Amino acid sequence: MGKHRIGIVGFRGYSGAEAVRILAGHPHAEPVLMEHRADTQDARALPYRHPVIPCTPEAAAGEGLSVVFLGTPPEVSMELAPAMLERGLKVIDFSGAFRLRTPEVYLRWYKAQHAAPALLAEAAYGLPEFCRSRIATARLVANPGCYPTAANLAIRPLLDAGVVDRAVGIVCDAKSGVSGAGRKATLKNSFCEVVGNLSAYAILEHRHVPEILQNSGLEEHELSFTAQLLPLDRGILETVYFRTTEPDAGALVAIYEKRYAAEPFVRIYPAGQVPDLHAVVRTNFCDIGVKLDGATGRAVVVAAIDNLGKGAAGQAVQDMNLMLGFSETEGLL
Amino acid sequence: MGKHRIGIVGFRGYSGAEAVRILAGHPHAEPVLMEHRADTQDARALPYRHPVIPCTPEAAAGEGLSVVFLGTPPEVSMELAPAMLERGLKVIDFSGAFRLRTPEVYLRWYKAQHAAPALLAEAAYGLPEFCRSRIATARLVANPGCYPTAANLAIRPLLDAGVVDRAVGIVCDAKSGVSGAGRKATLKNSFCEVVGNLSAYAILEHRHVPEILQNSGLEEHELSFTAQLLPLDRGILETVYFRTTEPDAGALVAIYEKRYAAEPFVRIYPAGQVPDLHAVVRTNFCDIGVKLDGATGRAVVVAAIDNLGKGAAGQAVQDMNLMLGFSETEGLL
Amino acid sequence: MGKHRIGIVGFRGYSGAEAVRILAGHPHAEPVLMEHRADTQDARALPYRHPVIPCTPEAAAGEGLSVVFLGTPPEVSMELAPAMLERGLKVIDFSGAFRLRTPEVYLRWYKAQHAAPALLAEAAYGLPEFCRSRIATARLVANPGCYPTAANLAIRPLLDAGVVDRAVGIVCDAKSGVSGAGRKATLKNSFCEVVGNLSAYAILEHRHVPEILQNSGLEEHELSFTAQLLPLDRGILETVYFRTTEPDAGALVAIYEKRYAAEPFVRIYPAGQVPDLHAVVRTNFCDIGVKLDGATGRAVVVAAIDNLGKGAAGQAVQDMNLMLGFSETEGLL
Amino acid sequence: MGKHRIGIVGFRGYSGAEAVRILAGHPHAEPVLMEHRADTQDARALPYRHPVIPCTPEAAAGEGLSVVFLGTPPEVSMELAPAMLERGLKVIDFSGAFRLRTPEVYLRWYKAQHAAPALLAEAAYGLPEFCRSRIATARLVANPGCYPTAANLAIRPLLDAGVVDRAVGIVCDAKSGVSGAGRKATLKNSFCEVVGNLSAYAILEHRHVPEILQNSGLEEHELSFTAQLLPLDRGILETVYFRTTEPDAGALVAIYEKRYAAEPFVRIYPAGQVPDLHAVVRTNFCDIGVKLDGATGRAVVVAAIDNLGKGAAGQAVQDMNLMLGFSETEGLL
Repeated sequence: MGKHRIGIVGFRGYSGAEAVRILAGHPHAEPVLMEHRADTQDARALPYRHPVIPCTPEAAAGEGLSVVFLGTPPEVSMELAPAMLERGLKVIDFSGAFRLRTPEVYLRWYKAQHAAPALLAEAAYGLPEFCRSRIATARLVANPGCYPTAANLAIRPLLDAGVVDRAVGIVCDAKSGVSGAGRKATLKNSFCEVVGNLSAYAILEHRHVPEILQNSGLEEHELSFTAQLLPLDRGILETVYFRTTEPDAGALVAIYEKRYAAEPFVRIYPAGQVPDLHAVVRTNFCDIGVKLDGATGRAVVVAAIDNLGKGAAGQAVQDMNLMLGFSETEGLL
Repeated sequence: MGKHRIGIVGFRGYSGAEAVRILAGHPHAEPVLMEHRADTQDARALPYRHPVIPCTPEAAAGEGLSVVFLGTPPEVSMELAPAMLERGLKVIDFSGAFRLRTPEVYLRWYKAQHAAPALLAEAAYGLPEFCRSRIATARLVANPGCYPTAANLAIRPLLDAGVVDRAVGIVCDAKSGVSGAGRKATLKNSFCEVVGNLSAYAILEHRHVPEILQNSGLEEHELSFTAQLLPLDRGILETVYFRTTEPDAGALVAIYEKRYAAEPFVRIYPAGQVPDLHAVVRTNFCDIGVKLDGATGRAVVVAAIDNLGKGAAGQAVQDMNLMLGFSETEGLL
Repeated sequence: MGKHRIGIVGFRGYSGAEAVRILAGHPHAEPVLMEHRADTQDARALPYRHPVIPCTPEAAAGEGLSVVFLGTPPEVSMELAPAMLERGLKVIDFSGAFRLRTPEVYLRWYKAQHAAPALLAEAAYGLPEFCRSRIATARLVANPGCYPTAANLAIRPLLDAGVVDRAVGIVCDAKSGVSGAGRKATLKNSFCEVVGNLSAYAILEHRHVPEILQNSGLEEHELSFTAQLLPLDRGILETVYFRTTEPDAGALVAIYEKRYAAEPFVRIYPAGQVPDLHAVVRTNFCDIGVKLDGATGRAVVVAAIDNLGKGAAGQAVQDMNLMLGFSETEGLL
Repeated sequence: MGKHRIGIVGFRGYSGAEAVRILAGHPHAEPVLMEHRADTQDARALPYRHPVIPCTPEAAAGEGLSVVFLGTPPEVSMELAPAMLERGLKVIDFSGAFRLRTPEVYLRWYKAQHAAPALLAEAAYGLPEFCRSRIATARLVANPGCYPTAANLAIRPLLDAGVVDRAVGIVCDAKSGVSGAGRKATLKNSFCEVVGNLSAYAILEHRHVPEILQNSGLEEHELSFTAQLLPLDRGILETVYFRTTEPDAGALVAIYEKRYAAEPFVRIYPAGQVPDLHAVVRTNFCDIGVKLDGATGRAVVVAAIDNLGKGAAGQAVQDMNLMLGFSETEGLL
């Protein structure tokens, strides 16, 4: 049997290019680059020798693509996704366009009207650890944001287990490499502004907050989320603080171990140990570790992912594997 | 009048070398390098042409030094400080040896008996913004830790003003450049292990915790403190989370502005704006900014310093200026 | 006596901002920011509290400025410099506009007609080590390029001493930090493209080549010059290769020591030792070291500067000190 | 058929760990970690779940290993290699122990007596592009040094084609990431000493010089080689300067294209274009580009590799593929 052909729009961006790289090594799929008019970025970093087709639903359908990855801004995705679906193509969108459930929430956080609100209810949220069955049968998958991927994997098992003092709430202090901001020329992301620096941004008002709330079960007043830009290219580390009545870190570790026992891409550390970025960069893993001060009930969970891996392209391929019936880890280990 | 001569032990370390650099530009003081037997580090990074004397109380007294800076580990400082004081020299110690008030607290956090417990009560804590008058008349100053400097400047005005919900407590997520770990050969701090990485360490049990508690007024169960190692050489940024009933960020900013109105080295940002590391690196400033979600009472304060500046050598010179009767900003602006 | 007021156009760029920083600490001069219509860069990195005036010759003259620094592109400098000179102001230009002696050479390397060719003969080349007396009396100083500063200081004494085998010629392999490219938003200089990378550019055809030839005495066919972009913000290191009949490195070192004996900003290393970037970053020094294989006559000279220091703003202040009759090192040590 | 088992001594070092990583994805081979008494490095960066056996010839033979990779210093390799060979195992040594042809040359450059001189004549030099047939039948392969790999691939075709003016000779200005120095705690390679820095070392006397001479055909007096330490973890870029009578860059490019037409891991760029490090990092490629100033005959060749890929572990796997009869690119694309 031939390989499934997977279209990639926005293949010049960091997430798109990473998807091309992963698919190039996939045993049952191969990338097809889709040239979009708005994607005018310099291509020098992309030496891939893969087929290139125009980014139109006609071309996508004519070329026999199985799935189209949209590595595009939300306003472009809202236009492309419906057109692709209409032609019978499956879509995995990397943007925030289809992650939130209502156009009202979208408007509040993205400051724009949603152009395809009918698809919001249909879209599956592409976090396999919590939405596996919906993803497997979906036409449209909203690939989760990078921060929410780590946050939801770290927070939701604790809430489900009822071990978080919700009156105190949760602090999630998140740090990301610069590739999370996309491949583009901005002064803020220029080398001299970033090197030797750390800067907080979108404090308490990051677009990814509603995505964490929606999928973790937290209420808005229970979560304080801050994003910070690290002087490195790839990787997200989130430090999560809460209070608990659990007596020791082992009990918290056990909650994670039970929840993720069958998960191929979530690794839980022994009590008291936490991951660093090197443990996860260039992988599809989310690593989680717990530290607890039993005497006072103060707990810290550290979760780490690669923002381009489990936080974007890796997770998209994991979703694709589910949608096309492949083993979930294919091409990702 | 001739310049005051300031002895510097540990001048090959990063903090000591920074003290040499600052003093070399000071109008009323000049550095004298004191060669200590345990300081065997490669000196290649130190092209200073300053006098060098042996690190003995006799030499220090004989050379007419006004103050001796100890850029040494606590066990060395506990030995050198009493001997220097006995000879009538004033001492500013960069280590944690004299920062805590009792030998019991020292034992708990430093895992060692204190060798000069009688000096603990006498030593002034060298944070001018809170201990100015004691520093001015002290024989022995314990230069504050880098993390506690930023934490105390950020936290104490809020506690004093009574605007923190202490039942919820305070989270302080701290990040530091690698020079904070000192100039030494360790695998953990080697280039390839640090570059492209972020790692949390000493979670909830950092030695600097008791120093924050002691000087801010927080109780241990009220504070969750995590330190993280950034892939950069200098700078500390601390993100502080709490709940408040204050209605807007402006009210919190006003607390800081009032408290620090006369302080030359604390800069308060307009409501909603926060500092990054570039704003403070290679300065003696501590910059503070506030963001508040008034609807839910969740507040975030970001404080930034240079760990070698206000977090070590800069602050030591500020203390020295007080001790020798100079203008407090001399050599530091 | 009041301080001389020094106008700075392009104060938001890296070189301009560094000039502001240096002048803020100068005992006899102070910076005045000149707001130019084309300088629309985000100013967040500039917390300076200095006077701001419009960038017009009228304002500059009316404000009693002694010298105007032009941190502008050559096409802007060619327009501003004549206008400022006409009003009786002295000008130090940071661009390449006035460094070459004829409009023909300018046209060849800058691919543009020169708009003020009459000034080319008048402009003094601002390298004090070779042009001190002309600078002191000049109305217009062309501040040297960063690469040529290090290259000329390294190469010219060797040529003057006749120790270079000119049939073999000279290779100058130059590496620079990213700030040398200016403060602007480009994909090429964005963090993710630069970090972990090294890239050669303008091989054998860099605009700085004619400036090296003109001031060192080399012929074009004798010099191979390559520039490379380092993943760091500040600093230039040039590795210079040639053949010599000198018997040992000491003889070459002696040539430099003699030539630069009275120079405050050129430091010569003992034979066999060479500088690294840390030795010069944030200084106005040019450090030079020599290694020789006496048996084969192959020699290597390493020269290091800070591209924003001796390579731009530091050198401009050194020139200004000469023009205003101050001690040459004022504000620079 | 089961996978070939490949022993890896020194799996905690950067090259050894990279070999483990590559072999873990190889279709016909799998890594077996060999625990050597001298390899006491902290293993935290190695989350591999692979079998571990003692590093003895007995264990290696008993476990049915096909090949043993020695990621050890030369003095350890000189001891282990003969013992492994005696037991009938094939060996690929990453150190410089077996790269030079005589004990005299070894003594001169490594300042030590060779402990197994009889093997020097037997060992195949593991650069497939020049020694493919010898590698395929060798018991012992000396994996080339990182600098010589790029240098020889860049220089030898030019010499073979007779287009280099040998009276002028060749300058090779080489720059490497820090992982080339191995995984160990040294002050020189600590983060704060390397970040923001560039330093030249072993100028004209690097141990890799004789390896370049031996395999390229250059005479010692014809080559000036300087190594420089870049502030990045992986990657080598070498800038090679020479004079030629070839009329245009295309003629030089054609020499490379012809020589490497059948080579899977050497990529030649169009005339005037050169590689940067991002093009090769985390690959087994050597990329080569040429720039020529035809009027003066000055030529520049830029060659780039990953020092841990084609410069170490990748090349070792390429050699292993040849020795075990696999396709040469297996596990490497």
